[in-house]
Amino acid sequence: MPLIRAWLDAANQPECDFPLNNLPLGVFSTDGARRCGVAIGDQILDATGLEQAGMLHLGDMPVLDQPGWNKLMELGPSAWADLRARLTELLREAAPEQDQIAPFLHPMTGAQMHMPFTVAEFTDFYAGRHHATNVGTMFRGADNALPPNWLHIPIGYNGRASSVVVSGTSVRRPWGQIKGPDDAMPRFAPSARFDLELELGAIVGQPSDGPVSVADADNMIFGYVLLNDWSARDIQAWEYQPLGPFQAKATATSISPWIIMRAALDPFRTTTPAREVPLLPHLQEPGPMLYDIALEVDLTPPDGQSLTIARTNYREMYYSSAQQLAHHTTSGCPMRVGDLLGSGTISGPTKDSRGSLLELSWGGKELFQAGNITRSFLEDGDTITLRGSAQGDGYRIGFGACEGTVLPALKDPYAS
Amino acid sequence: MPLIRAWLDAANQPECDFPLNNLPLGVFSTDGARRCGVAIGDQILDATGLEQAGMLHLGDMPVLDQPGWNKLMELGPSAWADLRARLTELLREAAPEQDQIAPFLHPMTGAQMHMPFTVAEFTDFYAGRHHATNVGTMFRGADNALPPNWLHIPIGYNGRASSVVVSGTSVRRPWGQIKGPDDAMPRFAPSARFDLELELGAIVGQPSDGPVSVADADNMIFGYVLLNDWSARDIQAWEYQPLGPFQAKATATSISPWIIMRAALDPFRTTTPAREVPLLPHLQEPGPMLYDIALEVDLTPPDGQSLTIARTNYREMYYSSAQQLAHHTTSGCPMRVGDLLGSGTISGPTKDSRGSLLELSWGGKELFQAGNITRSFLEDGDTITLRGSAQGDGYRIGFGACEGTVLPALKDPYAS
Repeated sequence: MPLIRAWLDAANQPECDFPLNNLPLGVFSTDGARRCGVAIGDQILDATGLEQAGMLHLGDMPVLDQPGWNKLMELGPSAWADLRARLTELLREAAPEQDQIAPFLHPMTGAQMHMPFTVAEFTDFYAGRHHATNVGTMFRGADNALPPNWLHIPIGYNGRASSVVVSGTSVRRPWGQIKGPDDAMPRFAPSARFDLELELGAIVGQPSDGPVSVADADNMIFGYVLLNDWSARDIQAWEYQPLGPFQAKATATSISPWIIMRAALDPFRTTTPAREVPLLPHLQEPGPMLYDIALEVDLTPPDGQSLTIARTNYREMYYSSAQQLAHHTTSGCPMRVGDLLGSGTISGPTKDSRGSLLELSWGGKELFQAGNITRSFLEDGDTITLRGSAQGDGYRIGFGACEGTVLPALKDPYAS
Repeated sequence: MPLIRAWLDAANQPECDFPLNNLPLGVFSTDGARRCGVAIGDQILDATGLEQAGMLHLGDMPVLDQPGWNKLMELGPSAWADLRARLTELLREAAPEQDQIAPFLHPMTGAQMHMPFTVAEFTDFYAGRHHATNVGTMFRGADNALPPNWLHIPIGYNGRASSVVVSGTSVRRPWGQIKGPDDAMPRFAPSARFDLELELGAIVGQPSDGPVSVADADNMIFGYVLLNDWSARDIQAWEYQPLGPFQAKATATSISPWIIMRAALDPFRTTTPAREVPLLPHLQEPGPMLYDIALEVDLTPPDGQSLTIARTNYREMYYSSAQQLAHHTTSGCPMRVGDLLGSGTISGPTKDSRGSLLELSWGGKELFQAGNITRSFLEDGDTITLRGSAQGDGYRIGFGACEGTVLPALKDPYAS
């Protein structure tokens, strides 16, 4: 698919994240009131205002009167397609509505972004082969790196929806119970091994009430965001047996502010890598359900220069979000509009494509060095920025940035 | 505290679950519309109706106009106390308002019960010493029964709020991926080891935004319900390493329809058992935060007679819900109004006090036999009923029943 030219020049530039082909959905404010908006070029189109003005008709009742896109999700895939068709009509080069639309555009630079939807529940998977192999090798040795179930099911755990925050929110280094392998007793202390995880988040846009096939699961996905699953490795090491990660992953999970709708990513579909062992039929992919999305992790130290510390691609995942969602429903688990599924850390096969400091510093044993940066894990004041984009012919579908800065731990967590 | 006599005779009977000292909160319907109600004797008081009639003033805006008690929770502990004081005034023996109240009473027998609150997120713990020891002995041997962290933190995992259902809802036996220890490959099949878990659920009634002390956590708890955490042991065995239970616990979790407010249980407070190793200061109990609540599990086979298969007590728990909630916030994890915390399975020290068939049949190795019942795990058509009550002097604080019937698995989960 070629670039669809818009009457906003900035949207037609090849390095722009938000051409007319993209049309990502967010929530923004310029003066306090939060409104639903659509990114186009360097502008945000006030979709709530357009609906109120009668220029965007999505349903019999207002759909964008709340600061979040959940009500549109509830209307289902045909409403999702209608929105894109109508916005394309209004923003297309030589669109006759140009003068009517212009008052609803706001420069991105002056806007604040908020959570683009209400997260119903959050599930995080562990579905990147390179990441699971790296972590498994560190903890269990190369021969037992992958758990026995790993090649048969996309294993995951339920996370905390309440901890999901939008890009730009600072993240405070957590306290937790920690016990080193040589310590006689655990102690309660700030995490000394606070880490990032580069992931993609899939947003469930339709509910389910029983097992769902992989094909149907793909159709339930509304869109994708970048996701940083902040992780306290020292808390995790002590707590995770036998019930899995809990407080180590509950401080915060950051997402990028723009929901990239599934339709915008359709031209970039790609299949999952070859299976080492065949999947059972209910988890097999009926078509390409991963995407070719280039990803990077930037680290900016306090008062320092930003450095890219990892580059990888979403096509490295062993399981797609559709497969994860299908597995999630096998037991009859009801899925809801606004459920968020983290892909799992997306590492590539090479050293410079690892999506966490745990891997980049090999469990803290090899200091990670780049430019002026030397790190085992994150230091106070470090800012992590995730970026992603799918490259089309003369345009790209960009995700924007997912950013967060590490604040120092509280001095006394129980001082009131 | 003695019985507070009501002008409804049934509420003054010693075997009644719902004397005036109890005042549990539910959501009921008699004609389709769901309303907030309070159990008293064998009647339900229509609290929504009382508020609309101006006889119950809880806030400046209506609090009970939604079918759920979340809005009252949000108002905080003084509003919770005001509600109990006002209801006690209206229902007390010789209350002058008797004639005005009578039209708002509905017989329990004709009413249908619904979810009493909106579950924000659901967390399930593993905080019963006897249960953890039994399960650990089966899976890892007696010498390694308790995981190393068990005596230091109330370990838990995040569950699925979407799967929480009210008592009376049938539960369909799940399908899942299963691999026996001698199988070469996993297969997709209905669970053959479907089980119950006897638990108490604590409802978080106030939000938090940082670490919370155990004392403050206790004050955040709005009330308690009985909770049956249905579990597919064969699915769990294959999936749970290293990320914990996922689909094995996502089919359904049943709760009893009446929220027993914390104040009603205050006279029955008791301390947790002696510590084997001291807890770190932030998890120590500043006072008695468990409760003396007698519990039982009844099994009714299809067309058969009900049998009590286990009797135990909530005071057997090693960690209180307040300690669990405090631990839950250590990382800064934000807690929300309506969060539900499962206690973990409540087993006692004896064979007849085990709160799951996994324990009663010792992993399916010893058939459990009682009356006409022989079971390793649950069979289709079995009904499980949990009951609980705290015994006062001449009265009791009853939880009512938490009931669910096992439906046969779907024949083909992907038939549309």
